[in-house]
Amino acid sequence: MPSLDLTADVVTLTQQLCDIESVSRDEGRIADAIEAALESLTHLTVTRRGHTIVARTDLGRDERVVLAGHIDTVPLTTDPKNLPVRRESVGGEDVLWGRGTVDMKGGVAVQLKAALLPQPSRDITFLFYEAEEIDAVYNGLALLAESDPDLLAADFAVLLEPTNAAVEGGCKGTMRVEVQLKGIAAHSARPWNGHNAIHDAHEVLAALAAHDEQTVHVDGLDYHEALQAVGITGGIAGNVIPDSCTVLINYRFAPDKDAQAALAYVQTVLPGRELHVRDLAEGARPGLDLPAAQSFVAALDVPVGPKEGWTDVARFSALGIPAVNFGPGDPNLAHHDEERCPVEQIVASQDALLRWLA
Amino acid sequence: MPSLDLTADVVTLTQQLCDIESVSRDEGRIADAIEAALESLTHLTVTRRGHTIVARTDLGRDERVVLAGHIDTVPLTTDPKNLPVRRESVGGEDVLWGRGTVDMKGGVAVQLKAALLPQPSRDITFLFYEAEEIDAVYNGLALLAESDPDLLAADFAVLLEPTNAAVEGGCKGTMRVEVQLKGIAAHSARPWNGHNAIHDAHEVLAALAAHDEQTVHVDGLDYHEALQAVGITGGIAGNVIPDSCTVLINYRFAPDKDAQAALAYVQTVLPGRELHVRDLAEGARPGLDLPAAQSFVAALDVPVGPKEGWTDVARFSALGIPAVNFGPGDPNLAHHDEERCPVEQIVASQDALLRWLA
Repeated sequence: MPSLDLTADVVTLTQQLCDIESVSRDEGRIADAIEAALESLTHLTVTRRGHTIVARTDLGRDERVVLAGHIDTVPLTTDPKNLPVRRESVGGEDVLWGRGTVDMKGGVAVQLKAALLPQPSRDITFLFYEAEEIDAVYNGLALLAESDPDLLAADFAVLLEPTNAAVEGGCKGTMRVEVQLKGIAAHSARPWNGHNAIHDAHEVLAALAAHDEQTVHVDGLDYHEALQAVGITGGIAGNVIPDSCTVLINYRFAPDKDAQAALAYVQTVLPGRELHVRDLAEGARPGLDLPAAQSFVAALDVPVGPKEGWTDVARFSALGIPAVNFGPGDPNLAHHDEERCPVEQIVASQDALLRWLA
Repeated sequence: MPSLDLTADVVTLTQQLCDIESVSRDEGRIADAIEAALESLTHLTVTRRGHTIVARTDLGRDERVVLAGHIDTVPLTTDPKNLPVRRESVGGEDVLWGRGTVDMKGGVAVQLKAALLPQPSRDITFLFYEAEEIDAVYNGLALLAESDPDLLAADFAVLLEPTNAAVEGGCKGTMRVEVQLKGIAAHSARPWNGHNAIHDAHEVLAALAAHDEQTVHVDGLDYHEALQAVGITGGIAGNVIPDSCTVLINYRFAPDKDAQAALAYVQTVLPGRELHVRDLAEGARPGLDLPAAQSFVAALDVPVGPKEGWTDVARFSALGIPAVNFGPGDPNLAHHDEERCPVEQIVASQDALLRWLA
């Protein structure tokens, strides 16, 4: 069984975590190692569900916070080979290079270093969960919220996903809707016998192209909405007037809107069109007006902005727990063949978090 | 070997032809039967290339005409089973029901009955050719035009494809062009980092939807042009701003235009767009102003109109031979599971053609 040395510096610990292969659905070994390391800390109560580990202090503090991170990674590549991790200089910058360095073993290492604090300033629930990178039915956080919601009860949550060590509050929601245009098939030499569904799509696309995307101020942050066609398909054969054309639209909406409000908004842009919701996940309010969040932001003294993409902070939001993203690494390098993280960001994230918790 | 009785009435002969299975690429048996039947007629010189049969009179007439028909069919169906052919009453109408009755064994039977004429009023080249229903590289007429153009030399051609026993002159050309819209991919939560190629397609579709399709008068007939999107595709994933969108357009153009003129016309509708020609076949002028055609129309005394779809008359046109479509059967029932032809049309087509040739 691989072992972890929690007394090592946070960069070395990140490297140890990365080098335990942990592609989604293969998190057993890394979960074992994390569980064993936490079991040795007597101030923590450790619970395991599948390959998801929860460790809690119980110091009777006024406030309880969650520090959460997923322990799986996307698949490895062979060319370039992205494990084992290398520490090297890239463009004069000291980086850890390889799978997991950004998404998100640096964040997990910061969690583990914080777990060493015997007397943190607030009670902490550490959550190390499986299967974030794959279909939501496997998501360890979602499963735990179903099976053991009490284990997650808290005033505030920090998800240590990569944000370049800035605070990114909440997240936008996402909804995919389809518009299906219907026509009448005919031979393309005799279009007057039919009705062209692809031609009709021009009104939908024109409305999307002309639409001014909204910026919405929520709890002190500006969320930039996006309403965009992400797919279109129509046509049966090169000699047939198409009887159907389908436009798939992705709406990324500010976290002041719930699902119903989001759908209603799309309907105002496409009045009279029948909208078929294909999938949907509400966003998360940043909650930066709440005392727990304000003390977090004040202690960290790092830039604060909105999270544009959807993340698991929305799962905390759904449980009534305000949540922010904060972790080392450039999110644009997550899942990338050249995934790599400046070691300085890992250290800075650790130091900022310990300032808040010490 | 199946045999054909050319002395049988034209409806019985049609039935005999249909019942020899002759799906494209499996025309050997029907070609053998036709060749054997023609070899017995001493006023004809018979030549075979593959499964294509040519039979010519050589009477020194002032005028030579081609009577052409393909001997293959589209595939059979099993439910309903469309061979052997049945003669039955459908809605009070006496029909032959089954594969090939429309497309185009009725026409082939009329050709064979005409082949019995020992002293036709003009020299005749009978052409029975293979593989019309599949990719043009197999087309027996196209292959013969390459290998033996002299065998096809003529003043006028009649293609006995189904026209409901009317004369349909020439045919429209067809061209497929693609318009590729280019964008810049980005995450759909951050569209400002990209450019949406699907949105840009609205201008192309709007131009097509707004376009007034032209009716063009050629050699006495009105051809109805058609410029229609027949396919559209765009999008990579539900969370990616699409960096490309492709619109496939089919232009059916009047036979006064060659390929260059057709492409130039599409460009006037979509100014500034790069057009990629995917395939192209020029049309055929009806040539109804020519003496050979005028005597044909006068002798038949049946309705005369334009052919809207593309047919092999265009191959004759490309050889400099004016050509018309004339044959029994409703073209809308060609390839249909319920393919069937009124026997009256088969008889009427035979009688009309013999009036001209006798």
